[in-house]
Amino acid sequence: MRHVISVLVENKVGILARITGLISGRGFNIDSLAVGETENPAFSRITIVVRGDDAIIEQVRKQIGKVIDVVKVIDFTNKEFIERDLMLLKVHTSSGKRGEVIEIVDVFRGKIVDVGQKDITIEIAGTEDKLEAMVRLLRPYGIKELIRTGSIAIGRGTK
Amino acid sequence: MRHVISVLVENKVGILARITGLISGRGFNIDSLAVGETENPAFSRITIVVRGDDAIIEQVRKQIGKVIDVVKVIDFTNKEFIERDLMLLKVHTSSGKRGEVIEIVDVFRGKIVDVGQKDITIEIAGTEDKLEAMVRLLRPYGIKELIRTGSIAIGRGTK
Repeated sequence: MRHVISVLVENKVGILARITGLISGRGFNIDSLAVGETENPAFSRITIVVRGDDAIIEQVRKQIGKVIDVVKVIDFTNKEFIERDLMLLKVHTSSGKRGEVIEIVDVFRGKIVDVGQKDITIEIAGTEDKLEAMVRLLRPYGIKELIRTGSIAIGRGTK
Repeated sequence: MRHVISVLVENKVGILARITGLISGRGFNIDSLAVGETENPAFSRITIVVRGDDAIIEQVRKQIGKVIDVVKVIDFTNKEFIERDLMLLKVHTSSGKRGEVIEIVDVFRGKIVDVGQKDITIEIAGTEDKLEAMVRLLRPYGIKELIRTGSIAIGRGTK
């Protein structure tokens, strides 16, 4: 099953290497991983999307929780949460197809962030499903480059 | 100096742990790191933001380039590129302040993705400067939770 795991850590050198090492040591491939700042500059939050056996992921979650400098680990599976991923992609727009591409971008409420002679660069944020639906529609035009941040997640409502 | 480094890798178990180990082995703290899918499902792209001595970062970049399963390493420093970071944040909106918060969200072209009794959750994508400016304006209302993906980057124009 797909798990979205959020790990709050102290900003210490090597903490990310320890956590990624723990996961890959179990042979899991990480679908995506994002590490960014939090409301407190002394801490970072690592969001990991991983697929695998539920019982083994639960073991890994517990192991991560025992690492020094890890403050909190949440597995969002079976919780109510909001998940967002960010994508930048560069699409071919030669041979008069630019208008069609811009229409698709508008439907998905993406933003055009750069226009070249033969391509446009699009920014879009959303759930993985939304980003994948957009990629499916744009693939026929030719995707030159695609980068995603990986998902971040936040619980719904007041805790 | 701040460096944005983009690493194209084959999707192999342990590759992320090797790269984060290389960087933290040099004693650098990683400002942010994002790993997500690319235009080809066999590859991922790792975007790392790191600050430090230019010459040592150049050494690390070369070491990363030598890792098996690393296809390409780009240091965007001194190049023309577009950089975007995604943030989810939950802000206090008790005592009739919801309207003010919504105004700020509109100015920054953010999206409100959840409304609770005492808070709203905002999604916003942009440069680090833009996200930081928004956080500065919202901090007085009380930020309950803040998560960022870390930056991803794409070169400008046609290569």
